[in-house]
Amino acid sequence: MSLKVVIIGGVALGPKAACRLKRLVPEAEVTILDKDELISYGGCGIPFFVAGDVSDASELQSTSFHMLRDKKFFLDAKDVTVLTETLATEINREKKVVMARDLKTDRELELPYDKLVLATGSVPNRLPVPGSDLEGIFSVSNLRDAIRIKDLVGRGEVEKAVIVGAGFIGLEMAVALSDLWGIETTVVEIEDQLLPGVVGKHVARMVRYHMEENDVSFFFSEGVREFQGNNKVERVVTSKRTIEADLVITAVGIRPNSDLAKRAELAVSGRGGIIVNDRLETSDPDIFAGGDCIEVKHVIMGRRCYMPLGSLANRQGRVIGTNLAGGNDLFEGVVGSFAVKLFDLSVIKAGLTLKEAIMEGFDAFNCLVSQLDRAHFYPEKDMMFLELTVDRKNGRILGIEGVCDNGDALMCRVNAAVPLLKNRAHISELSNLELSYTPPLAAAMDIINAAANTAENILAGRNRVIDIDDFEALWEKRSEGSMVVLDCRAWGNAAPFVEKYRDHWINIPQDELRKRIGEVPRDKTIVLVCNTGVRSYEAQLILDQFGVRNTFNLQGGVAALKKSGIHLV
Amino acid sequence: MSLKVVIIGGVALGPKAACRLKRLVPEAEVTILDKDELISYGGCGIPFFVAGDVSDASELQSTSFHMLRDKKFFLDAKDVTVLTETLATEINREKKVVMARDLKTDRELELPYDKLVLATGSVPNRLPVPGSDLEGIFSVSNLRDAIRIKDLVGRGEVEKAVIVGAGFIGLEMAVALSDLWGIETTVVEIEDQLLPGVVGKHVARMVRYHMEENDVSFFFSEGVREFQGNNKVERVVTSKRTIEADLVITAVGIRPNSDLAKRAELAVSGRGGIIVNDRLETSDPDIFAGGDCIEVKHVIMGRRCYMPLGSLANRQGRVIGTNLAGGNDLFEGVVGSFAVKLFDLSVIKAGLTLKEAIMEGFDAFNCLVSQLDRAHFYPEKDMMFLELTVDRKNGRILGIEGVCDNGDALMCRVNAAVPLLKNRAHISELSNLELSYTPPLAAAMDIINAAANTAENILAGRNRVIDIDDFEALWEKRSEGSMVVLDCRAWGNAAPFVEKYRDHWINIPQDELRKRIGEVPRDKTIVLVCNTGVRSYEAQLILDQFGVRNTFNLQGGVAALKKSGIHLV
Repeated sequence: MSLKVVIIGGVALGPKAACRLKRLVPEAEVTILDKDELISYGGCGIPFFVAGDVSDASELQSTSFHMLRDKKFFLDAKDVTVLTETLATEINREKKVVMARDLKTDRELELPYDKLVLATGSVPNRLPVPGSDLEGIFSVSNLRDAIRIKDLVGRGEVEKAVIVGAGFIGLEMAVALSDLWGIETTVVEIEDQLLPGVVGKHVARMVRYHMEENDVSFFFSEGVREFQGNNKVERVVTSKRTIEADLVITAVGIRPNSDLAKRAELAVSGRGGIIVNDRLETSDPDIFAGGDCIEVKHVIMGRRCYMPLGSLANRQGRVIGTNLAGGNDLFEGVVGSFAVKLFDLSVIKAGLTLKEAIMEGFDAFNCLVSQLDRAHFYPEKDMMFLELTVDRKNGRILGIEGVCDNGDALMCRVNAAVPLLKNRAHISELSNLELSYTPPLAAAMDIINAAANTAENILAGRNRVIDIDDFEALWEKRSEGSMVVLDCRAWGNAAPFVEKYRDHWINIPQDELRKRIGEVPRDKTIVLVCNTGVRSYEAQLILDQFGVRNTFNLQGGVAALKKSGIHLV
Repeated sequence: MSLKVVIIGGVALGPKAACRLKRLVPEAEVTILDKDELISYGGCGIPFFVAGDVSDASELQSTSFHMLRDKKFFLDAKDVTVLTETLATEINREKKVVMARDLKTDRELELPYDKLVLATGSVPNRLPVPGSDLEGIFSVSNLRDAIRIKDLVGRGEVEKAVIVGAGFIGLEMAVALSDLWGIETTVVEIEDQLLPGVVGKHVARMVRYHMEENDVSFFFSEGVREFQGNNKVERVVTSKRTIEADLVITAVGIRPNSDLAKRAELAVSGRGGIIVNDRLETSDPDIFAGGDCIEVKHVIMGRRCYMPLGSLANRQGRVIGTNLAGGNDLFEGVVGSFAVKLFDLSVIKAGLTLKEAIMEGFDAFNCLVSQLDRAHFYPEKDMMFLELTVDRKNGRILGIEGVCDNGDALMCRVNAAVPLLKNRAHISELSNLELSYTPPLAAAMDIINAAANTAENILAGRNRVIDIDDFEALWEKRSEGSMVVLDCRAWGNAAPFVEKYRDHWINIPQDELRKRIGEVPRDKTIVLVCNTGVRSYEAQLILDQFGVRNTFNLQGGVAALKKSGIHLV
């Protein structure tokens, strides 16, 4: 008798697991059920559909060879039965049966299984505030919502939008509304930075500045108290202000959709994620689970976490497909690889931010470098900003994140660090990582090597750094007279600063420092700056040699200040 | 007494080692000598200077902050003494003295050292054929040659150029001459493919086609017998033809410049590379060597090889600098990361090609995949072609190479595999590699995951493949009647092929195959094709299920055929 497999959920992981299984065991009988009519779509493409980059919703549901992944496709091409608009209502683990209801006919179904897969996904968090049921308030939890939003903005009826939540979906939606549709867009976030829990404060600041330059407004550390309006939303009231809006998108996180699993008494974590082993089996070995409904093991944190990302769902789907077929594929946990493109700026991360690392108990430090993505003599190039998080105790790499207009080039660097993060590598492995080199695509000493070298120098105590926020705080108190900036660039670059801040900004080019050592003030805290932090580090070493040790090297240099929106001149 | 260090060679590694040492031990007395006047330039930028992308040679010699790295720069900014136009003539290891001659004054110098660094680089191979001393014949071994070539082409005196040698420098020079200057350019190569020993035959073929489409001509398997002309070169005579030329560039490889080391009786390999340990010490622990004059350990080959690349020289320079300062940094060998951009096409590789792997004794197979660099629904995207070399015995990744117009995106995938190559990882680690995902930059199931999945399926015997050359050979014998192509795409794509090759090309879309199984011929070898190789693999599995097993899946599909210049319709 052939293997009977039932899969609950037909968006990302479910179809992947089904197809992999069928390739390995063609005679398996596979049924996917989904409560929706639309299945197997690229949910991560929703913001690009709203933005108009993807003109038709069906493209998100098509294969790369332009076939619509509908019921007929799964039956003909994959020999997989799909029941849409069919809600799984109960799992009877003893009888190995899934109870379901056909929402079109209200008919009850009983689906027996040998193996069951839970791909039930997530549900969006709702804001429990007055007015949240007004018209014009959406979450972006599925393609149907997205189509409604696009209809609305496409009719030209939206002038002002408020996005609640500055996570990546909220930000992508802000770009979609603002960039293509020219809608005045405001993002309200309860945390004090965008992409909270995803990127560190330096990267967050650079992204914020970039989005503000593209006319998106932000209010941080503000909670939404109420939505107001007459049937239709007209105003968003936060803890600090009232903002007009004719469209509101709430993107305040999602949680695992694990009700069915809970009712079937499968192991579920306190935060609601289904608990699975490396084979992606639940506490019942005949039931697998993956995608947005499970918790995954974080390799660096060494504990379970919730990481609902489409790319993980796809990889997990393949693991489940293999194991359904009797194989033994393992999903060995995540390092938290993440990417998003916002207007022209790409933001990519893997591992932990400094804050996350400290919260996880690591004695961690960070290292921010600015460097071109190409050989500096090559005509087309972009400045890249890359930050490492490193364990001070043992020099282990804990995280990497950055921003660059050349998103492919940034992804190139972050991805190369992923295997090292997973293997708990020392930063010296990143220092010596043998990246390919050609002037149109990289520098001979790649930024990733340079970043690791800088981290090694910080770890060894040779490079004593100050970060952007601390510099800014010190700079704001400059009138107290205890600090001075020593600009190590050539006069041409330094002149506007020196002329504007004569008492607090002096210029000695690094190559003149040995000869002009007498000009260096000895009674002040000196912040050394250059364009990227390289020459100022050299200057710090020279000053050390001459016994001037009250110096800090500004990480990332003036380039990083500017990228963060700090224009002192 | 302070540490005295002498460094022979001032291009890439020498200055890097000097600067690193000075940062660690500021009081060290460091002297660099170089026989040339021009030092510390980015040699890899030479073709871009000739092409005009880099307008002034001094840019190759400048820092990223536009300071010329000349003698004065090294003295002022780095406290390093540089003696240009100074030829090291002998090393007296007993006295620890380098003998040198000032070429400007003919004065002899005696430079005592505590530690010595050999950064003597390479010398270009010359073609020992008649006429090789004619005017108009150059190698591109240094910036001075490049300036002379650019002068010549800039004066409009060159109409036809011949490049001897299709290594990466030869090809880059072909692009430079052809693209910017519109010179009719022919490349003559004695091996049977371009980039021999660097990329495999599939990639080589795709690159060749791309360059031919850009009007560069190639003659392979031809040796140069003679250069002819009246003072100035006019013709290149090969083993098969005579080609007119008013400029010839010979790029027939380089060899380690190790004469000084040999005379000092340091250990040198049979092929002339100075032998060093992981600390980059020569057989004399007071003498380090690095860059193009040494041999390096190849991590995958498990033996020494010669890999003269600027990026390695830079990384080795830092290791030597650290060790000069009493540290213990290691250069643990190479995996052979390599990149070049030729017209719009980037070519990137790490590890071994299939041919190299087989020559090294591995029971290896290859796996070629075609996939978009982005989510298929994202509007801007490029097709990427990626090939893995895998050890059949244990599933270990041995190499990765590919081509793509989006060079950054290709580098992203190859670089991510570098740490895995170094760690001798199994392909399953590549299958499950957690690359970051966002639709504008990647697919949810990234091409690198897809390539590894394909390799796993080949290894497991599920995916039985045929490569482009073997397909072509089979196709050329199609009139013998033993083969047929089964095109698994939709009729619209297949129609022109079926109509042109009615007896040898049939079409059954993959999603109709189960129903139309009766139409499949059972007496012939069937080559299954689709656009990329994914649907044809599904078709193969279906045919297996129905007992039709004389099938081969065309690796990379029609997309790979087209990229290789094989246009059947």
